[in-house]
Amino acid sequence: MDVSIGELIEFKKLKELKERAVEMNVIDLAEEFEKLTQAQRAVLFRSLSKDSAAEVFVYLPPETQENLIGILTDPELSHIINDMFLDDAVDLIEEMPANIVKRVLKNASEDTRKQINQMLQYHEDSAGSIMTTEYVDLKEEMTVEEAFARIRRVGMDKETIYTCYVVDSKRVLDGVVTVRTLLLANASDKVGDIMNTNLIYAATGDDREAVAEIFQKYDLIALPVVDTERHLVGIITVDDVMEVLEEENTEDFYKMAAIEPSDAPYMSSGVLELAKKRFFWLMVLMISAMFTGTIITRFENILAIFPALIAAIPMLMDTGGNAGSQSSTLIIRSMAVGELGISDCFRILWKEIRVSAVVGSALGSFNVIYRWFLSGSLRLALTVGVSLFVTVMLAQTLGSMLPLLAKALKFDPALMAAPIVTTLVDASGLIVYFYAAGVLMNM
Amino acid sequence: MDVSIGELIEFKKLKELKERAVEMNVIDLAEEFEKLTQAQRAVLFRSLSKDSAAEVFVYLPPETQENLIGILTDPELSHIINDMFLDDAVDLIEEMPANIVKRVLKNASEDTRKQINQMLQYHEDSAGSIMTTEYVDLKEEMTVEEAFARIRRVGMDKETIYTCYVVDSKRVLDGVVTVRTLLLANASDKVGDIMNTNLIYAATGDDREAVAEIFQKYDLIALPVVDTERHLVGIITVDDVMEVLEEENTEDFYKMAAIEPSDAPYMSSGVLELAKKRFFWLMVLMISAMFTGTIITRFENILAIFPALIAAIPMLMDTGGNAGSQSSTLIIRSMAVGELGISDCFRILWKEIRVSAVVGSALGSFNVIYRWFLSGSLRLALTVGVSLFVTVMLAQTLGSMLPLLAKALKFDPALMAAPIVTTLVDASGLIVYFYAAGVLMNM
Repeated sequence: MDVSIGELIEFKKLKELKERAVEMNVIDLAEEFEKLTQAQRAVLFRSLSKDSAAEVFVYLPPETQENLIGILTDPELSHIINDMFLDDAVDLIEEMPANIVKRVLKNASEDTRKQINQMLQYHEDSAGSIMTTEYVDLKEEMTVEEAFARIRRVGMDKETIYTCYVVDSKRVLDGVVTVRTLLLANASDKVGDIMNTNLIYAATGDDREAVAEIFQKYDLIALPVVDTERHLVGIITVDDVMEVLEEENTEDFYKMAAIEPSDAPYMSSGVLELAKKRFFWLMVLMISAMFTGTIITRFENILAIFPALIAAIPMLMDTGGNAGSQSSTLIIRSMAVGELGISDCFRILWKEIRVSAVVGSALGSFNVIYRWFLSGSLRLALTVGVSLFVTVMLAQTLGSMLPLLAKALKFDPALMAAPIVTTLVDASGLIVYFYAAGVLMNM
Repeated sequence: MDVSIGELIEFKKLKELKERAVEMNVIDLAEEFEKLTQAQRAVLFRSLSKDSAAEVFVYLPPETQENLIGILTDPELSHIINDMFLDDAVDLIEEMPANIVKRVLKNASEDTRKQINQMLQYHEDSAGSIMTTEYVDLKEEMTVEEAFARIRRVGMDKETIYTCYVVDSKRVLDGVVTVRTLLLANASDKVGDIMNTNLIYAATGDDREAVAEIFQKYDLIALPVVDTERHLVGIITVDDVMEVLEEENTEDFYKMAAIEPSDAPYMSSGVLELAKKRFFWLMVLMISAMFTGTIITRFENILAIFPALIAAIPMLMDTGGNAGSQSSTLIIRSMAVGELGISDCFRILWKEIRVSAVVGSALGSFNVIYRWFLSGSLRLALTVGVSLFVTVMLAQTLGSMLPLLAKALKFDPALMAAPIVTTLVDASGLIVYFYAAGVLMNM
């Protein structure tokens, strides 16, 4: 590898620096900023071409953006803001502290500022919040040739040009036409005759997760967003949807592990902030586990007579918890990808009963044989084996039904599914265990 | 809503059926098949236009595809296979039983059959397995006008035309050019002069997860795939990458819940098949939990003297398990999205020590106060509180370090992270508890 960008800056080889910057992908270029000092960043940023400066800026992490904004002059900042795609500008505004936001908005053009303010009103999780208002619009009465002329004229600044949106004089969405269709049509064909009127669109208030599902179902690259009167207000592109999918998956992972979801990266989150996100649900679950403890206390007399019973408690609790989270994870994930729904409730229950019976009897039998061999007491072995069988069946049927119940009650199925199932199964598993002991050991 | 497709078929209104089919989106049309009987499916499928038949077929679930192949004549089947995108044909082959595969390949054209066989040789998780060999290729010496002529001529059958690939006479990839660039260039410009030579590509053997990361990093719509000599062999499109991402996320969910990952949908998997996927890891974890049980047995004399100690065991075990899976989930997910890596090991450890100290002391203090108030024994309360504090600290530092260790040893960090952490924390937490009891209760 030749000299690094940092070295080019240090040795003031500005011409070579510019050439290098032109050759590089904007995303790789953005990564280079992380290796530089504050002063070096300013040099590199100013050596970028006007066209790529805004693009590189968008890919910088928030701290570096804040850092750079502090260095840039008002005209430089103004150029960047007005050159950014609107959805990226909105993201920037949402991430910067108030004093920076003020400076950014002051340097945005009247028009950009108005559009940013409008976008900021959409709810964080809505289609409106991830759309861009920059797209190519066409009219039905245009010819293919006129359409291409318009694409050439306005397309440079648009996030995608490959799907164009056909609107009437009131901006009501009438159809879409792809550049592919336009390329394969005759120059004199009317847009209105070749456009696709079988429209797939989202409303500004739609949940962004639902939007991601539409993209996946129909293999889309872009989706129009309309208001309540079907006026076209923006489009959503596939790259933003991939980000949404990643964030939603992260949220689901966190919820299932009983952590409050957060957009903030791990390393830039403070210790107290991270602690707070973990504390609440741990506390809730701890209190419910304390009740499980009182179950043991109630059966102390049995434990006093048969202390050997205690040794199997961790195994029963852990296996019950693991078995339950297997089922709840399967069902939650199948619901998240649209494979299962509430209406499948009884088919799932019937399947889980059979699957858990197989798993439970295999694990239970192993325990009976192993413990009989080890302790010589068939009664003790049977108590553990039968309890494990019942616990696994309870765990997996409960584990599969709870996410469905949560969904039916409009709660989030992923929210702490595994820990809740564990707590429920612990309690019921222990009760089964002590009753089984009472019956089997005293026979 | 007007009459259903089923009714149109029943009343033999074939003309209206055809009109309806033309209006509908192919994916919605594919969903309609699920509502029909076998005989009705054949009628609907034959009423589709030649162009859309193959497209609709691709979106049918495997059982329906198998079902339809059984009904179709050889010429009908042949038309569909040769009309499908190659990657879809390969997916079909991989999902059908042997006798169907034989009939499908028999009816494919010589050329298609050869290409399918070649594609089948790529490893399931490789870039080669998700690429398509249908793309638009251009030459450097073509003019923009000639390029458009070629796109118009060959583009109809290609999965994407918006990115074109520039190859030399030996099919070595020299550059890419987008339709956007072509549209904004002059008709007489040479492709070689306007193409982007800053190439981003994958090799056939690259892991498909790595490919998905490239797509996310560079916001791509398509990515070229080359062999070891940089010959262009295919392209990967964003819709296939979204599927990969979904599958990889599902796999991670399953692994973290200690289920063997599977592509098969829940409902179409047999009971024994599902049981098998759950049994193995439950068994492994159960055996390790049995060792935890022997720890309790070793401390039976303390429990005999202070039976009140037993009641806190479930709370200690559950809270330790939950605390550990919070940390392991955070780290696993941050690694999966590329936010953290092994090199961050010490910074993570330092952060987790502080976060878990905060969380542990909050939960521990609550326990001391609550149990002191409840039992009147400060010693018992302190034993539980101190043990909980140590357990939470152990759980979260272990929980954060284990995924990193797994990654460093080239194991999968997501594999059963939560259950393994639970088992380790259970054992160490109980040992701490009994030693604390030995010291504090006998003071």
